[in-house]
Amino acid sequence: MAKIAPLSGFPEWLPAGRIVEQQVLDTLRETFELHAFSSIETRAVEPVDRLLSKGETSKEIYLLHRLQAGAGQDKDELGLHFDLTVPLARYVLENAGHLDFPFRRYQIQKVWRGERPQDGRFREFIQADVDVVGQDTLAFHHEIELPLVMVDALSKLPIPRVTIHASNRKVAQGFYEAIGLTDVEQTLRIVDKLDKVGPAVVTELLERDVQATPDQARLTLELAQITSSDASFADKIASFDLHSQLLDEGLEELVALVEGANALIPGSVVADLKIARGLDYYTGSVYESVMEGHEDLGSVCSGGRYDSLVSDGKRTFPGVGLSIGVSRILARIIGKNVVAPTRKVPTVVLVAVNDETERAHAEKTAFALRKRGIATEVSPTSAKFGKQIKYADRRGIPFVWFSTDDGEQVKDIRSGEQTAVDMDTWQPAEADMRPRLEAGEQ
Amino acid sequence: MAKIAPLSGFPEWLPAGRIVEQQVLDTLRETFELHAFSSIETRAVEPVDRLLSKGETSKEIYLLHRLQAGAGQDKDELGLHFDLTVPLARYVLENAGHLDFPFRRYQIQKVWRGERPQDGRFREFIQADVDVVGQDTLAFHHEIELPLVMVDALSKLPIPRVTIHASNRKVAQGFYEAIGLTDVEQTLRIVDKLDKVGPAVVTELLERDVQATPDQARLTLELAQITSSDASFADKIASFDLHSQLLDEGLEELVALVEGANALIPGSVVADLKIARGLDYYTGSVYESVMEGHEDLGSVCSGGRYDSLVSDGKRTFPGVGLSIGVSRILARIIGKNVVAPTRKVPTVVLVAVNDETERAHAEKTAFALRKRGIATEVSPTSAKFGKQIKYADRRGIPFVWFSTDDGEQVKDIRSGEQTAVDMDTWQPAEADMRPRLEAGEQ
Repeated sequence: MAKIAPLSGFPEWLPAGRIVEQQVLDTLRETFELHAFSSIETRAVEPVDRLLSKGETSKEIYLLHRLQAGAGQDKDELGLHFDLTVPLARYVLENAGHLDFPFRRYQIQKVWRGERPQDGRFREFIQADVDVVGQDTLAFHHEIELPLVMVDALSKLPIPRVTIHASNRKVAQGFYEAIGLTDVEQTLRIVDKLDKVGPAVVTELLERDVQATPDQARLTLELAQITSSDASFADKIASFDLHSQLLDEGLEELVALVEGANALIPGSVVADLKIARGLDYYTGSVYESVMEGHEDLGSVCSGGRYDSLVSDGKRTFPGVGLSIGVSRILARIIGKNVVAPTRKVPTVVLVAVNDETERAHAEKTAFALRKRGIATEVSPTSAKFGKQIKYADRRGIPFVWFSTDDGEQVKDIRSGEQTAVDMDTWQPAEADMRPRLEAGEQ
Repeated sequence: MAKIAPLSGFPEWLPAGRIVEQQVLDTLRETFELHAFSSIETRAVEPVDRLLSKGETSKEIYLLHRLQAGAGQDKDELGLHFDLTVPLARYVLENAGHLDFPFRRYQIQKVWRGERPQDGRFREFIQADVDVVGQDTLAFHHEIELPLVMVDALSKLPIPRVTIHASNRKVAQGFYEAIGLTDVEQTLRIVDKLDKVGPAVVTELLERDVQATPDQARLTLELAQITSSDASFADKIASFDLHSQLLDEGLEELVALVEGANALIPGSVVADLKIARGLDYYTGSVYESVMEGHEDLGSVCSGGRYDSLVSDGKRTFPGVGLSIGVSRILARIIGKNVVAPTRKVPTVVLVAVNDETERAHAEKTAFALRKRGIATEVSPTSAKFGKQIKYADRRGIPFVWFSTDDGEQVKDIRSGEQTAVDMDTWQPAEADMRPRLEAGEQ
């Protein structure tokens, strides 16, 4: 038997950390539903040819084989999904006849990638995606709506402020074509590395890989360095005096995005012309994000507009969506104890047991409390009261319930205050009903 | 590219079915927390030698291989977990120093088995487990507590009544030994087939596989046919006039279970001496269950007491727990439309858009409503009102919000009633706040 040890890249939490995770996931779900997105959950597996169809063949996919399968029996090879976009595309195509378009869906699930684990990169992790998918057409205003859903959701989490950085594929493509660079895909991939490798290396790569002249490389870098929290980026780009219908269209959209988003949630979206996104299926707005003080984590929420998520030949399904890297955020806030729950169990009340003959009465008390939504545990032993109080104290359970000759009593073990109560009416303070998240001791 | 088709054994729901699934999972979680169980979530994978260590080597395990791994690179072979008990055992051993015992945990996760799919049997499915795990010792009263947690949870679901059928390994073992049958494991496995193959075949198997005499086979069958909703089963067993300390101990426990459980929740637990459970790690109470009118589904909730979930040589961790086959239940109630949600989206209000210049105002209205917990969508188009109302109607959205020259108005599209309202104060009825589950049209 292998020795028991954590598997690198497969994060797991102790019960206290799991409370943080659950509350974060609850908040995301609640917010997505407030914004009228429907939940779906897709199976963990997809046929391998579908997983490999989205261009990125370098993805480290986990393939499945049945232990008992004879040679050649596993014909339809399956792999674990590495994101929630490939499954969404398949789900939409498979169920198009039963869905209402535009289809607003959110999906919070684990995904798997066989990559080398490192800080913030896992082999198993949770993603939270929202997308609006149209049939044949999808209005631009969803490109303003979707990043705001994410900003709204992220602002309710116990984490530092997250700002969306946005650009637009049409701006980049129109600009590159206007200055004479024709390999748009490759240029985008090089610019995408700017933060990692710096401007000197980007210049070198542009000259080497897309045959940019020094002037073209300089202009490309100048575009990538433009950023503004209002529409002023458009003036800077206008000063290049370039003429391209695509560029103009992209600028109009990016201005509408920055102005529209910030009118609804001030400070939510910044124009940042270096945002390129590696994936080639984006066709309009593209989004990344930064969590203040945790820039080293990279983007914790990314996405964009795609004109064809999937097509069956007759119909095309355009969409826009973003994905939150939930585990990346959780690993930071749980792992570094940025937040911690006020207690590590759901329990509000421990019902003490005087001796084993009174256990049935204690159980009845517990059922009465639970009926009114109060999480209750009956003491596992009828040890001395001091021990039972210690049992509650170690877990952070705030109240201990006693059955005495003078009737039922409840002790708040934080204050020591003990009161006569009735099991059918006593109600703890709302704040004590479930563990709350607080800044952790660091 | 493979043609788009559902994968047999990997159930997925449309958004309406997913609402049923979410509410069922919410209810289970809530009830488990009311009973003071902590949530944990374990990674989907375990080392293969650990998956194979629990005896059942015939399990159809899915092994993982990285697509890009070179030969021999995947040394520590991983497989998807096929239940939540093996991961619990590993988690307890790995984290014992950080857990408080008795450790009360619930876990609701997908598991995978490469078995041939059939009605109610899937390759990917959700289990919901509760266990109490002690360190070195665990009091018997948890064997009364745990099935009641499940009965309480299941009784809150929109499903037919579920009753727990219980027996005790000590009764079976003590009885078999007292009548001279020594291969207890094999006898249990044969008795476990009684419902499937009937008494004649069981007799045959007992005579063939454990060399039972006709008398021994008859007695074994007589025991298996005893059932009672009170302690009277014990009198029937006493009438066999057998003498065994283990049998007496088991009878005392089974009487305590049936009487204790039914005192707290009448009709919750029935003594049913044929309950054997295939797994050899059970040592005390064993539980199965029946959903009224759906007996063909088999047990939807099963488990038992085990004296050694896992051990590290120094410490042993006894426990008791049960597992609900959630997907098996869901496939029946969603698949056969036993229940359906009152609407297929979370949305309470659709805010109509007069024309695109007023979209920003509609968005502001939506944000104001969401701030008070009202799930709101802004109409994706500024089409004629009739079309926007139809959009809401098709999804079951109960309210449409209009901005008129006379101020804000809300229309209940079920009654047609339209009222002047204020975006900062209007509140829909509590019953309209989220989709409710109702009996489906069958």
